[in-house]
Amino acid sequence: MARYIDIHSGFVGATEEQLRATHQSRRRVEDTEGVRFERSWLDPEYGKVFCLSTAPSKEAVLRVHELAGHAAAEVYEVPIEVC
Amino acid sequence: MARYIDIHSGFVGATEEQLRATHQSRRRVEDTEGVRFERSWLDPEYGKVFCLSTAPSKEAVLRVHELAGHAAAEVYEVPIEVC
Repeated sequence: MARYIDIHSGFVGATEEQLRATHQSRRRVEDTEGVRFERSWLDPEYGKVFCLSTAPSKEAVLRVHELAGHAAAEVYEVPIEVC
Repeated sequence: MARYIDIHSGFVGATEEQLRATHQSRRRVEDTEGVRFERSWLDPEYGKVFCLSTAPSKEAVLRVHELAGHAAAEVYEVPIEVC
């Protein structure tokens, strides 16, 4: 398992309720690919969504997004983290 | 105070030690701008660094990066978060 950050565009003006609905739609299908979404952040001005997940592969992250109906624009594997 | 995610490029092949040094250099100057860096993630294959911070403004996040000697390429305010 590895950590991933993915980035979506096209959420200009989106609300917390819409982000929550998007997050929930991914959570409903994540088990099919062994993905666990942890947190999502939204910049409603620029329409950017960032998701932090744990998954077996980048392809699994992409497939969950496709299954949930909103493909991720970019997925990065981030094996290194500092706090 | 608001939450921000910033993105840097140019860290292809960077190590955890280098990410930690970069993070520490920001932590040393963050108080001057009232910024608090929480976590940083690195994708060494694509050379991308993502930082999550709390700050009084986007400009404050940018100034801390400049003071630390590595300007952020993009800074997004992310007022909405779901878990």
